[in-house]
Amino acid sequence: MNLICTGTIGIDTIETPGNARREHLLGGSGVYFAAASSFYTTSRLVAVVGDDFPPEFLDTIKSFPGVDIEGLEIRQGSKTFRWGGKYLDDMDRRETLFTELGVLEEAPPKIPESFKSSEIAFLANSHPAIQGDLLSQLTQPKLTVADTMDLWINIAKDDLTKLLKRVDGLVLNFDEAELFTGRRNPVTAGRHLLEFGPRFVVIKKGEHGCILVHRDGLCALPAYPTEKVIDPTGAGDTFAGGLMGRLASTDTKDPGSFESVREALAHGTVVASFNVESFSLDRLKQISKTDLHTRFADYASMIRIG
Amino acid sequence: MNLICTGTIGIDTIETPGNARREHLLGGSGVYFAAASSFYTTSRLVAVVGDDFPPEFLDTIKSFPGVDIEGLEIRQGSKTFRWGGKYLDDMDRRETLFTELGVLEEAPPKIPESFKSSEIAFLANSHPAIQGDLLSQLTQPKLTVADTMDLWINIAKDDLTKLLKRVDGLVLNFDEAELFTGRRNPVTAGRHLLEFGPRFVVIKKGEHGCILVHRDGLCALPAYPTEKVIDPTGAGDTFAGGLMGRLASTDTKDPGSFESVREALAHGTVVASFNVESFSLDRLKQISKTDLHTRFADYASMIRIG
Repeated sequence: MNLICTGTIGIDTIETPGNARREHLLGGSGVYFAAASSFYTTSRLVAVVGDDFPPEFLDTIKSFPGVDIEGLEIRQGSKTFRWGGKYLDDMDRRETLFTELGVLEEAPPKIPESFKSSEIAFLANSHPAIQGDLLSQLTQPKLTVADTMDLWINIAKDDLTKLLKRVDGLVLNFDEAELFTGRRNPVTAGRHLLEFGPRFVVIKKGEHGCILVHRDGLCALPAYPTEKVIDPTGAGDTFAGGLMGRLASTDTKDPGSFESVREALAHGTVVASFNVESFSLDRLKQISKTDLHTRFADYASMIRIG
Repeated sequence: MNLICTGTIGIDTIETPGNARREHLLGGSGVYFAAASSFYTTSRLVAVVGDDFPPEFLDTIKSFPGVDIEGLEIRQGSKTFRWGGKYLDDMDRRETLFTELGVLEEAPPKIPESFKSSEIAFLANSHPAIQGDLLSQLTQPKLTVADTMDLWINIAKDDLTKLLKRVDGLVLNFDEAELFTGRRNPVTAGRHLLEFGPRFVVIKKGEHGCILVHRDGLCALPAYPTEKVIDPTGAGDTFAGGLMGRLASTDTKDPGSFESVREALAHGTVVASFNVESFSLDRLKQISKTDLHTRFADYASMIRIG
């Protein structure tokens, strides 16, 4: 099935403990998602950059043969989104150094006609009203999943609640699930979120893995244990990319079933574990499908009991 | 193989968010460990209480048919260890309300002659020098595992380092592994701890599961996802009890092998998930081996991929 993703493309500045400050990095939710999902299927990326977008970054995106950039708009006279983040000693926590919204303050991207029949859709984090508009442009969505963040829970909860009625799945962080529901227990928070409409909720816990709360079951998976954590930026988006890419690539009648999502989460876990091993897309550029399969087999065997 | 455990027996006071303060609860590392491991094998408990120890608590311990209390000394003229703890909103964090050491300030328990040939030993958390003395009394230990806590890392690190040379395994919390090694990444911290001697280190992450760093492999397992967390007291000890009980009960030449420990950790995970569903040993008293097997099968199938 065809996979479409709407998200951001950004120019990042990242500070990590023990590593020098890195500037001018290709980033953004859409880029990370598209690169990760392209290991599994063709990934249709819908996003906008400004005319300041470096050509070498475009080359990097194109270097992932599975990413279809027909929906990547280079908007003349506009500025590309820029973001700076600093990770604290605990690499799971970060603070924003600066945000220059640029094109994100303007009209959202348009979905090309040829993309509108995409069946599997991921709405990366943006204002839930924009996510809703993008969703409305799809003519035959079969499985739709949205990401969100604390900002929208704080300032646009009504729009987010409306969106939840229309999507099959929601992906969000542990803290965000608590912020939305007032429930700290991730299972309780997940069940509460299901009441707003989605069929499943994936609660991301970073280095501690994830919890799947699905109408038809419950699952917890660990993160792939690794010593090499260089830069966690994009971990959540590559996790979602592996998840959705896998769901789009399998020939199943019901890609949103508990079993399908549970299995696909293991793929997201493994792709994300590669992504954190470098800044930007450096590691994902290096690895092959074989590398991915090898680590996936290792992960599956690590958690196989009995 | 025969399993022996040295640990504490205490009278606890527990405060949890949303639950009334509960006083006069049977607790202590040895009690939790022995009850949990008794689902798998006979568990030889070595511990001391004072003459104030309530007879009904002794009855509770005896109600676990697998617990052998020959090594439980009721010391005349002494006071039982008492501890009060308060859990914060995040049930993973707690503060100590009070500690009345009682018998723990006196001579440690003695291992009965009939217990000295025990092959599998768990040294629950106490001063590492005492743990070392107890270990010296065993005549043919085949697998020895110690627990520890931040207090001993802070005030008796030399003794703890000496102990690490003599045990096969170490079980400790995520924060304690960082405190000991100065390494926050649990895999890095675990590898560092292996350099002091043990063959494996189990890093407990509470609701986030555990990490096994073994000379022959690496594994992460999630906690069993549950909404019912009434009182986390004893979670770590029942986790260790399920782990060690399972290792003692299997007829393997090498109970400390990566595969044996990895599989046994899943049992520890499941026993601990029952324990947190009530105060004290209330839930472990209710469940049967069948309940344990049912949830174990559920857990194993939840994390089985491919």
